[in-house]
Amino acid sequence: MTTTATASTERIVNGVNVDKLMQTMDAIRQNPDTSKFNFRIDNYWIDGAHNRAVVGDFYGANQAHRRDRTFFTYDKSEHPVLLGDDRGANPVEYLLVGLAGCITTTLVYHAAARGITITKVDARLDGDIDIQGLLGMSDKVRAGYKSINIKLKVKGDAPKETLEELVILAERLSPVADVVSHGTPVSVSIDES
Amino acid sequence: MTTTATASTERIVNGVNVDKLMQTMDAIRQNPDTSKFNFRIDNYWIDGAHNRAVVGDFYGANQAHRRDRTFFTYDKSEHPVLLGDDRGANPVEYLLVGLAGCITTTLVYHAAARGITITKVDARLDGDIDIQGLLGMSDKVRAGYKSINIKLKVKGDAPKETLEELVILAERLSPVADVVSHGTPVSVSIDES
Repeated sequence: MTTTATASTERIVNGVNVDKLMQTMDAIRQNPDTSKFNFRIDNYWIDGAHNRAVVGDFYGANQAHRRDRTFFTYDKSEHPVLLGDDRGANPVEYLLVGLAGCITTTLVYHAAARGITITKVDARLDGDIDIQGLLGMSDKVRAGYKSINIKLKVKGDAPKETLEELVILAERLSPVADVVSHGTPVSVSIDES
Repeated sequence: MTTTATASTERIVNGVNVDKLMQTMDAIRQNPDTSKFNFRIDNYWIDGAHNRAVVGDFYGANQAHRRDRTFFTYDKSEHPVLLGDDRGANPVEYLLVGLAGCITTTLVYHAAARGITITKVDARLDGDIDIQGLLGMSDKVRAGYKSINIKLKVKGDAPKETLEELVILAERLSPVADVVSHGTPVSVSIDES
């Protein structure tokens, strides 16, 4: 979490290799296709509220990537109050998990690019949902979160104002925050096979 | 994954207790506050792209709920091509995990409510992102997914048209799909303590 010099001359700030970050940006300037990524997952229903996602390969920087280790699997379920058996967080909680991670990583990377050492990014997120939407009980109640609040505690070797600017930047440039704030077109198709 | 009779007279369809589902809806009709939920997570930065979410309590059905077992923890990271150490799926993959789980559970619950036995819900999701947005390299490139595609394979004891209607219903009533499609206001505040 501090700036360290490696055996070579690479600059590591906040655990981020800043030289590689700059090389990545140079590669994108030379070939804009380098910045195009496609992420994908597979998901399998098991029983009731219990289903499982498998996260493995993705495409980016002009090639397919397969993860070295076993694919990541994530179980989703619901608490008994929502008629599940609680074998994992529920899908709307996963959304908050992704949102928290994205704002955190975006902040840490952009701090690194500016040479700012970060020592803490703690976040608490919460969101309000009225499940009348999910249950189809009212057309006046939306299905999703009505609002999401993020409370961030950020510490680092920069003035308070600089850390605040980083928070604003992270919110604006975080991919998940962008999707959640502004929406993204979703297309659903049925595989008849 | 089939309709089963329990020792009592409760109807279980697709692993969902339909009687409890109907009781929940009755309770909401009698007291609309019952449908109001608040989900929350805590998230801690560890190093570089690595951060961890803890998912525990939530509020809903007029009371706070604490999970019986250990809280769920989820590690997020980035693949080395995105300068991480690959200790978990990345945040935009988590978003797809939540989206897949939400559409699946919404479909299975509404099928249960209609007495339709479901035998399979497999989903493949993918989304395109141009990381020039994340990197702040272009104001013309959005940070988030440009589009997300969901391919569903659904099997059950209903005509094809009925299963297709369930897919459309699931997309419309899924909380995560609603957030991703239409956006949700996000407010960020800084905890100075």
